[in-house]
Amino acid sequence: MPFIDAANIACGFHAGDPSIMLKTIRLCKKHDVRAGAHPGLQDLFGFGRRKMEIDVNDMYAMVLYQVGSLKAMLDAEGVELSHIKPHGELFFYMQRDLGIMRAVLEACATFKVPVYASQNPEQEAMCKEMGIPFQGEVYVDIDYSPEGKLVPVAQSQQVTPELCYERAFGAAMTDSGKDINGDKFSFGFDGRPFSICLHSDAPTVLQNAKLVRQAVDEANRAKFASEISQVNGRS
Amino acid sequence: MPFIDAANIACGFHAGDPSIMLKTIRLCKKHDVRAGAHPGLQDLFGFGRRKMEIDVNDMYAMVLYQVGSLKAMLDAEGVELSHIKPHGELFFYMQRDLGIMRAVLEACATFKVPVYASQNPEQEAMCKEMGIPFQGEVYVDIDYSPEGKLVPVAQSQQVTPELCYERAFGAAMTDSGKDINGDKFSFGFDGRPFSICLHSDAPTVLQNAKLVRQAVDEANRAKFASEISQVNGRS
Amino acid sequence: MPFIDAANIACGFHAGDPSIMLKTIRLCKKHDVRAGAHPGLQDLFGFGRRKMEIDVNDMYAMVLYQVGSLKAMLDAEGVELSHIKPHGELFFYMQRDLGIMRAVLEACATFKVPVYASQNPEQEAMCKEMGIPFQGEVYVDIDYSPEGKLVPVAQSQQVTPELCYERAFGAAMTDSGKDINGDKFSFGFDGRPFSICLHSDAPTVLQNAKLVRQAVDEANRAKFASEISQVNGRS
Amino acid sequence: MPFIDAANIACGFHAGDPSIMLKTIRLCKKHDVRAGAHPGLQDLFGFGRRKMEIDVNDMYAMVLYQVGSLKAMLDAEGVELSHIKPHGELFFYMQRDLGIMRAVLEACATFKVPVYASQNPEQEAMCKEMGIPFQGEVYVDIDYSPEGKLVPVAQSQQVTPELCYERAFGAAMTDSGKDINGDKFSFGFDGRPFSICLHSDAPTVLQNAKLVRQAVDEANRAKFASEISQVNGRS
Repeated sequence: MPFIDAANIACGFHAGDPSIMLKTIRLCKKHDVRAGAHPGLQDLFGFGRRKMEIDVNDMYAMVLYQVGSLKAMLDAEGVELSHIKPHGELFFYMQRDLGIMRAVLEACATFKVPVYASQNPEQEAMCKEMGIPFQGEVYVDIDYSPEGKLVPVAQSQQVTPELCYERAFGAAMTDSGKDINGDKFSFGFDGRPFSICLHSDAPTVLQNAKLVRQAVDEANRAKFASEISQVNGRS
Repeated sequence: MPFIDAANIACGFHAGDPSIMLKTIRLCKKHDVRAGAHPGLQDLFGFGRRKMEIDVNDMYAMVLYQVGSLKAMLDAEGVELSHIKPHGELFFYMQRDLGIMRAVLEACATFKVPVYASQNPEQEAMCKEMGIPFQGEVYVDIDYSPEGKLVPVAQSQQVTPELCYERAFGAAMTDSGKDINGDKFSFGFDGRPFSICLHSDAPTVLQNAKLVRQAVDEANRAKFASEISQVNGRS
Repeated sequence: MPFIDAANIACGFHAGDPSIMLKTIRLCKKHDVRAGAHPGLQDLFGFGRRKMEIDVNDMYAMVLYQVGSLKAMLDAEGVELSHIKPHGELFFYMQRDLGIMRAVLEACATFKVPVYASQNPEQEAMCKEMGIPFQGEVYVDIDYSPEGKLVPVAQSQQVTPELCYERAFGAAMTDSGKDINGDKFSFGFDGRPFSICLHSDAPTVLQNAKLVRQAVDEANRAKFASEISQVNGRS
Repeated sequence: MPFIDAANIACGFHAGDPSIMLKTIRLCKKHDVRAGAHPGLQDLFGFGRRKMEIDVNDMYAMVLYQVGSLKAMLDAEGVELSHIKPHGELFFYMQRDLGIMRAVLEACATFKVPVYASQNPEQEAMCKEMGIPFQGEVYVDIDYSPEGKLVPVAQSQQVTPELCYERAFGAAMTDSGKDINGDKFSFGFDGRPFSICLHSDAPTVLQNAKLVRQAVDEANRAKFASEISQVNGRS
């Protein structure tokens, strides 16, 4: 909690239960961390990382259900719902099935908060169409394919905290990353804010979080300093 | 749906799932029926009618979770949350454990809607203290003990639709019912509005609903007529 | 129960629970109906008819778990496990993924009873390799594709009890059926026994079962009679 | 695994799932540890430690289901089912409700293996009546009441590994323990073998197991030595 700015709180379908959700909300409150909903597929056994075929109407209802359950707890605790971020296989399902993407985003639109996700022009366009703010994300503890797409956790290589640091700092300073072949690609944020996502079930997660926090702080200072020098340059 | 004024929608813990909930909300909308949340114990297997010991903090979180899930669907459909009505063993648990009663009502208070339940002075007082409107209920398809308490479904005698009619009309006209010994007792509504609750898993539920609808309509007409005659009498 | 020779008992993953399983076993006993295990995907919400991606090792464990749970109840009741029949999407998954087929059949091999399934040369070969008796099945309440493959329930046309009768009698007498285009194809049983499968959630299931029972009895009599006349003819 | 002689494997109702069960069985096989079934109440959320009211017929079916699921996996792996040990609240439920005790033991009787549990004359008598071998247990990481009854985990004081050692060694050498008031009581094993149970979710479980292993080994050596000296004494 002390290292992060925003938490994605699982809503009971792939992980979490009412008591864990409430406890996490109170932790967020204590540490002044933004609280977001993390809906997933109905797959506790597989932690929401197994492929399932879901009817689009069921999908729409499931996202409403999950985010709504968290929203009520946040209301009770006087904390705002900060964002929605689809979990694991639900994210991948949205990327390959436009019907599912639409169903999920239509459910999200009810809550009038930003959706966080890895960049995808179709998703950004659909969000725009529905009036949903979209915020891009960078992943530093899993891989990117040569097409710039995320590689699922199970197929990604394990990372060191140092690699997380390097990727986070690089993304912030150069708006670019490296794919599994080591080739550079651009995230395309063009100066817009983005978030960095960390998996809490990575073996070295605590150290990962610590170093990414450091990378973010250093990048923010470096950018802020350069803005000042620009300002200075102007004067 | 055509016979009822308000529906209690199960929220997935003892029955229901996101798709069934959404479908029911849409039916409510179509038939202009009020939609209320029907939270229960986490017991799909036993339809929320088995006794379970729950920690009060868990209970609080579970009610927020369930009602919140329905609330989000209602928001999405542009339907108001009408009320909250605890289901089955959760209701009985509240009646015998003040800690559980408080936990459930505190969760309900978040939603600022009336709580529906069988009369109980402690419950009414606690609702008042928390600023929650309380609405009493009459049951016509299960029994009342000599103490005027509800008898669980499994221990109640099966009813005929005609008996439901008789009980509903009697409650409306005389503010009283009969316990399992046939002794009369007063509901104590004293002219305040109350609702009549029907179990949708009763074998003759459709006919029960039809006749209770008739009883309510007749009672309302009779009372309205008597008010008119009173008015006439005064003039 | 009075119309069938063998029951496929769901084991709690897509339907059923311990009490329903035990009750069904006792019904089988009473009606002298063979009791088989009906393992499925872990998908209560979707009745085991939704596609899910399962790791082959998980699949193997899940089939052992489900069949074992039923086997213990049968042992307690002194009833033999008659056969194993994979349910719904698990059946289709086996048909399109040889790794899943192997995992399921390896689990089945532990129980040393026949596996019932629609004909598939690869499946028959794998059963043979593992020493598992295989028994082919004919479906009369769902469709067959032009390739002679089963069409899932959701995509099949609804049937009348009369059509079930016709298909069952035809299969028994001519070893052939008709695909969705009305073209005839051979089941290829070549005189080996086969079973006819009925879905208990079909709207007209009771009437379907009654007429299929009649078709089977008539076919057996007709065949028996023809064997006698053959014998007579020979003498 | 290297420290224990027998494992109690949860069967999916309060913990565990088919894949975890199979993995644990394979670990048992590798470490030559006996594998027992650990059925519990249907309460994943509360880890089988919450009170629930269960119908005796449901209870019977649930124990058959759980033990059967493990038995099939053991059969597949060529490992014997060593024993059955009811988990958490199921154990306590049996102690206070003879109907539940009978239902559980009747289900256990199907498997013809010993039942492990804390001493209780009624339980021992019922096991004897049903022909089930009974093996007493000593707990060293939770407390005993002044009546010599086990105190649930949540109400027990946390232990150090050293205290576990002391209790285990004391039980083995003197057939006695101390209750929460520090008063001594006798286990009453009278030289019969018994097992020592450790909770795998205790914070210091690994160290607990290590020291209890040492206590058991030392006690066995001491007793063996004394038997030898007895033998010597005779000669």
